Amino acid sequence: MKKTLNNHNHQPLIIIVGGGFGGIELAKKLRNKPVQVLLLDRHNYHTFQPLLYQVATGGLEPDSIAFPLRRIFKGQENFSFRMTEVEQIFPEKQVLKTSIGDLKYDYLALATGSDTNFFGQKAIEHYSMPMKSIPEALNLRSMLLQNLEEAIIKQDEAKQHALLNFVVVGGGPTGVELSGALAELKKHVLANDYPELDLSKVNIYLIEGSDKILGAMSAQASEKSRFFLEEMGVNVLCNQRVLGYDGEAIELSEAPAIPTKNVLWSAGVKGAVIEGIPSEAITRGQRILVDEYNRVQGCANIFAIGDLAAMLSDQYPNGHPGVAPVAIQQGKNLAQNLLRIIQQKSLIPFKYHDKGSMATVGRNRAVVDIGKIRFQGVFAWFVWMFVHLMTLVGFRNKLVVFVNWVWSYFSYDRGTRLIIRRFSRSSMTEDTAAK
Amino acid sequence: MKKTLNNHNHQPLIIIVGGGFGGIELAKKLRNKPVQVLLLDRHNYHTFQPLLYQVATGGLEPDSIAFPLRRIFKGQENFSFRMTEVEQIFPEKQVLKTSIGDLKYDYLALATGSDTNFFGQKAIEHYSMPMKSIPEALNLRSMLLQNLEEAIIKQDEAKQHALLNFVVVGGGPTGVELSGALAELKKHVLANDYPELDLSKVNIYLIEGSDKILGAMSAQASEKSRFFLEEMGVNVLCNQRVLGYDGEAIELSEAPAIPTKNVLWSAGVKGAVIEGIPSEAITRGQRILVDEYNRVQGCANIFAIGDLAAMLSDQYPNGHPGVAPVAIQQGKNLAQNLLRIIQQKSLIPFKYHDKGSMATVGRNRAVVDIGKIRFQGVFAWFVWMFVHLMTLVGFRNKLVVFVNWVWSYFSYDRGTRLIIRRFSRSSMTEDTAAK
Repeated sequence: MKKTLNNHNHQPLIIIVGGGFGGIELAKKLRNKPVQVLLLDRHNYHTFQPLLYQVATGGLEPDSIAFPLRRIFKGQENFSFRMTEVEQIFPEKQVLKTSIGDLKYDYLALATGSDTNFFGQKAIEHYSMPMKSIPEALNLRSMLLQNLEEAIIKQDEAKQHALLNFVVVGGGPTGVELSGALAELKKHVLANDYPELDLSKVNIYLIEGSDKILGAMSAQASEKSRFFLEEMGVNVLCNQRVLGYDGEAIELSEAPAIPTKNVLWSAGVKGAVIEGIPSEAITRGQRILVDEYNRVQGCANIFAIGDLAAMLSDQYPNGHPGVAPVAIQQGKNLAQNLLRIIQQKSLIPFKYHDKGSMATVGRNRAVVDIGKIRFQGVFAWFVWMFVHLMTLVGFRNKLVVFVNWVWSYFSYDRGTRLIIRRFSRSSMTEDTAAK
Repeated sequence: MKKTLNNHNHQPLIIIVGGGFGGIELAKKLRNKPVQVLLLDRHNYHTFQPLLYQVATGGLEPDSIAFPLRRIFKGQENFSFRMTEVEQIFPEKQVLKTSIGDLKYDYLALATGSDTNFFGQKAIEHYSMPMKSIPEALNLRSMLLQNLEEAIIKQDEAKQHALLNFVVVGGGPTGVELSGALAELKKHVLANDYPELDLSKVNIYLIEGSDKILGAMSAQASEKSRFFLEEMGVNVLCNQRVLGYDGEAIELSEAPAIPTKNVLWSAGVKGAVIEGIPSEAITRGQRILVDEYNRVQGCANIFAIGDLAAMLSDQYPNGHPGVAPVAIQQGKNLAQNLLRIIQQKSLIPFKYHDKGSMATVGRNRAVVDIGKIRFQGVFAWFVWMFVHLMTLVGFRNKLVVFVNWVWSYFSYDRGTRLIIRRFSRSSMTEDTAAK
């Protein structure tokens, strides 16, 4: 080994757990600084989560929205990466227990993001499909396509019906984008691929608990996205709680049950907390309470950033939204503060610069809020595509995604409707369970 | 269902098993003919096998070398597709037993190709990695990358050594291409991604049983490819039989055992025969004996094409080579003959037009034989790329592969070195086993 993790020059070791938006920003900003950085992740790649729904619906290849973590830090002398599962934190000993052994840190930055929240409903967790990682998106893709193949051969009308009803739960950006993408899959792909299928039997539902979809955006964005979805044939059902799902039919609070084999769950997230964080520091949605410097409550040298962190303030009484810009900005601010701690300087409180939010519904249909400026439609769609392309890590990914989008735009096709690995609930292994 | 498989107009039903090169060519050539065509495959996509090694070594995305089978036959009125596993043939009843029920055929065309042949060596089958399907190529990719990650953290020199020895068995085109790609991965990617790794410890071996690699090609191609490989740092060991592999070290007949965790098996294939074919019709390498019209020996209306078929002749005493052009030409010829059988015309014997063969070793290094014309090097490499791009099914695939190749050429990088799903021998499910 030419280089080891031994801290030969006594520089403080900062361990970052999680190679999402926050983790990589933090590690990048520590380049050429007088610290050693060790990044841990269970995957060897960074996932561009905003485009997972396109992988799930056959629009993009999984490899296009992932980027090798080691590559991001090519040439960064003070950086190391280890692919591992972090099992427990021992704050008093400053030690992390991992699948590759115990690691001692000087400073620990938790950037593990969030997991799907089923709110304790075990049956829903068992039968519905989450979509927070690439393996999960691929499982979802396989399941959708397998159910279509099965519908073709089913003689039993009721069973066929359940295979052809697609129910997306949760009207946030993910739910809106997913149900929109399914509507396009139906219109442009199923019509060609399955001439023997009566398309009027294929139904797409979007279920939302509150009275509007995209509730975190402006009223205009919310209304227009609903209009777009309905125009595309999605049945949007608001004010509905999901009472249960047994793998055959989904029960709703205010509407008849919908028989379905396809329930896509995007109704909530919870912080991906690692064992060992004091329970007093864990708040609503399993997020970790942090001060204005992202320091975990009650832990001197442990920090949490991004989706995982709950930094409560007057402006954000429930913490910041779980979006990439918050994670990136917190990563950047924390890098500065860690260096300031070492230099014994005073710390800089985090301040979120909200650049706006957006969601896409389908071809030529997106909604954008930038401060007081709101627009929807074709231009919003181009803005959405541009921003997502630019945020993708890696030139190859940008290029391949761009080529795919241009090709899809003109061909109305989705190239990658492939069942690379069959999905079966019984064969869900640690891959899927652990993401 | 708007359209069923019921043969309302009494046209003969031709069932094709397998959507490889032969199967799709046959089905295409039956377009607008007075027959019904039903294509069965366990996958919903066609796999472009010649580029599997690039998926395994992180050069291409899996989705780029696969194409949805239903899409190929878009608008072909007399065509249906079913994703299913064929379990048994009952020739006397003209029935196929499948995972979606029994299917009655008038004519049956078997185009199931070949599987990896371990020549009955169970331990090798258990511990080594084959590469005949996309899931297998992805498993291989994951295993290679996981072993690199593990090598980084291993303190034990011997264990590290075994993780960093890569042994490819079989000096045919697949073995040559795979070992060449590994050499490039080492040179251009590992050096950047793993600065802590001593590259001199990474060794790549190509093991061949006969006295030369690419034995089916010209002496020139064979010698030059060996020169290229050695120039790239691959240890080519000829005249070596593999005596055994226990997951720790591979034993060779004429050289010391090589400690290794990475054995890639491309040393042989056997026909993917379905139960029910008379045993007299099965010959060497588990291929099915066919007459000059590809009719299975002893079966009036069952045909076999491509890798699966053994059509023995003076020129090809062991049958034709197992390459795409044979499968394509046999598919084309069989389409004609099936129509001639129906019209009660005399049949056209199959004649193989050998357009040549080629293999690539690495960047700017390929070997091409076209009849008496032989060339190697940069121009051969461009010819290889052009022919493979043109043969890829689908415009999107051509475009995405082209973009990837151009990008790799200038960046010396391989974009997709991602462990999307962890590989573990214990979690090999039906996915892997059944491909």
